[in-house]
Formats: sequence, C-alpha cells, structure tokens
Amino acid sequence: MKSYRKELIFHAEKRRQLFNITPQVEEALEESGIQEGFILCNTMHITASVFINDDETGLHADFEEWLEELAPEKPHSRYRHNTVEDNADAHLKRTIMGREVVVAVTRGELDFGPWEQIFYGEFDGKRPKRVLIKIIGD
Amino acid sequence: MKSYRKELIFHAEKRRQLFNITPQVEEALEESGIQEGFILCNTMHITASVFINDDETGLHADFEEWLEELAPEKPHSRYRHNTVEDNADAHLKRTIMGREVVVAVTRGELDFGPWEQIFYGEFDGKRPKRVLIKIIGD
Amino acid sequence: MKSYRKELIFHAEKRRQLFNITPQVEEALEESGIQEGFILCNTMHITASVFINDDETGLHADFEEWLEELAPEKPHSRYRHNTVEDNADAHLKRTIMGREVVVAVTRGELDFGPWEQIFYGEFDGKRPKRVLIKIIGD
Repeated sequence: MKSYRKELIFHAEKRRQLFNITPQVEEALEESGIQEGFILCNTMHITASVFINDDETGLHADFEEWLEELAPEKPHSRYRHNTVEDNADAHLKRTIMGREVVVAVTRGELDFGPWEQIFYGEFDGKRPKRVLIKIIGD
Repeated sequence: MKSYRKELIFHAEKRRQLFNITPQVEEALEESGIQEGFILCNTMHITASVFINDDETGLHADFEEWLEELAPEKPHSRYRHNTVEDNADAHLKRTIMGREVVVAVTRGELDFGPWEQIFYGEFDGKRPKRVLIKIIGD
Repeated sequence: MKSYRKELIFHAEKRRQLFNITPQVEEALEESGIQEGFILCNTMHITASVFINDDETGLHADFEEWLEELAPEKPHSRYRHNTVEDNADAHLKRTIMGREVVVAVTRGELDFGPWEQIFYGEFDGKRPKRVLIKIIGD
C-alpha cells in the first residue's frame, strides 16, 4: 500500500468564501502515482469545510443565504462560544457543510460524477488555513 | 491491497424518494472478496445523498417534512440557482443528508450496529442517477 | 495492508451528552501499530454521532441550543416516528452532526490541525451504546 500526503494553504480575503480546489486535488493525485484507492480531503480547522457540490455562482449565493438563516453570524452575543471569539456561527456552518470528503480513485483519477467538484468552504477567514490531502492505495 | 468498483443505477419515479440499498452494497462486497477494509458508497450526483439511518416509514416521512422545513422546494424563485434549473433545494437537502458513507468491512461483512441501513436519497428524481461503490482492503 | 478494529462503549447519563473520545482513538491507533493509513470512527447507532470540532463548553452549549432549534425534541407527537419511540429528534440531530469521521494517520499519529478533537455525540442516551474504530494501512 502506498500513501501520499500534501497540505494546501488558503487565505480567504472575506470572512466567508468558497474555493474550488478540484485542480489542486487532481494535481496531488497525479503526484502520488496512486491508481486505485481512496483520497481523504479535509480541512484542518474547525470553522471551515471541505465539501462536494456544483461550481455555480447562483448556488453559492444560495448557500451563503441559507447558512446565514440556519446559523446566523450576528448578533455575536447570541452564542456562548463568543466570549473572546466571534466565530461560533462558523463552527455551526461548517457542521452543516461537513469537515471532509472521501473520494474513490480509479485508474489514477478522481472517480466523479459529471458535476462533482471539491470546495474549500471558509467561514472564518482573513487568515491562512490548511487543507489536508491524504491518499492511500496502490 | 485489493480494490473493487461497482455502479448502481436508480430511477426515482418521484422528485424525492428514499431507497434502502443495503442489499446491493452487501452483494458488491461479496463480489469483491474483500475481508478487511473500507467501503465507500457515494452518490455521483450533487442533488442526491447516500446516508445511514433507520428503515422506518414514519421516520422517512419525518425526514421529508423536516428537509422541506430547512430547505423548502418552493417558491422556486427563492433560490438564485433556479434560473434554468429548479433544483436548488435538492442541492441543500443533499448537503444536510450527506454525499457519502464510509463503512468498515470486517470478516467479509459490513461492520454495522443493529439498526444501520444504507439509503440512497433522491431529491431531484425522475431520471436515472448513479451510486458508486468502491471497496479497498485485503 | 494491516487492519485493526476496536469498539468503545458509552453510557450517557443524560439524553444528550458529548464525550471527547480523542484519547481513546489515539490509544487504539497506538495499539494498531499502523503508521500510514486511515482511521474510520463511527457510531454504531442511528441516534448518535461521531464528529470533529472544538472542546469548548460554550460551543457545546451552543450546539445543544442550535440542534434543539433545528430539530426540537418536543412535542414528541410532532414526529411520525414517535409511536412506540420518542427519539425521532435524535435521528435528525445525528443527521446534522454526522455518523462518522475519517482521519488520516501519518507517522503513527492522528494527522490533525491545532484544534481538532473527536467527539461522540449522544442524542438518545441513558443506555449503553457503541463506537467503532477501524484502522487500515501499513
């Protein structure tokens, strides 16, 4: 069994921002030389997410609005976590969106349906944050 | 390390529909001959879900009602994704329910608790859609 | 490829309770002797969750309040699942929080960011329940 590890770094300019990271994940897979196996791709932070969905700006605007409905940022005093911090909403938003994805690797490629794209979802940005890619297989 | 890959196809008659796919996943595992490892089971579409829960019709009705509360289908104009499409709600519902499950394989079987069952959750049906099963192990 | 399996048992005194299980998962990893691979950690029950977030009591209180907003326990009659059972809300809460986590193993350790901790989230407690740890790798 082979394994490969790589970190990506993202520095969102906004508090909340989505990045399509599919090209970087494909690049890591190629570097690994692994043909059959699994890729794990997860955020290393608890106020961010890695998830799979559509790369469509209307949908991304819908996500922003919807997450603000389900777990509003403000008032910050709404949350008990927000004493020194102001990012409780980001912990909740990331819970909805998920921490990680596991993707099948088949014949050296991401084994994806037609519209699947991998995103890094930042919900407490304006500082550098890391995504971990770990690949195991043969 | 061995690996095995199989696709399942579902054609939901309704827009939203749940299918218990545990027997098909067990069949794929048997075909693979893998005794110890992991199964990844994911929808290949971004308006559907693979998740684990109880096979109980009351609960399934509760899921339908609850998802409609959290991410209502209508009015379609509610979502910016819905220009040519009308399925923004399906992208959000799938986000709540999850894209994939990873299940342990032990002694050639799904290593499950007493009530765990795997479901394909369709939220934008009336057309054929695919589920990917990928198994790695020995 | 090596594999290792272990069950943990939790008996929550309250209906809803969070347990930081990171030390037990690290212990299992050490027992496994696996240096490079993946850990799967999942609840074996459908009214509980394994998830990764911050070990901060304010945030845990926020989770409790937020989950009660999104999927209230009462009135029990609100849910069709609650005929003999009264735990439909626990099935929904667990859906938000997730069934499982997959964590990379690198050089024999959980490959974590600075604040990541693994939790068992019980939403229908007062009885013994199991968490499965399965590790594959070399």
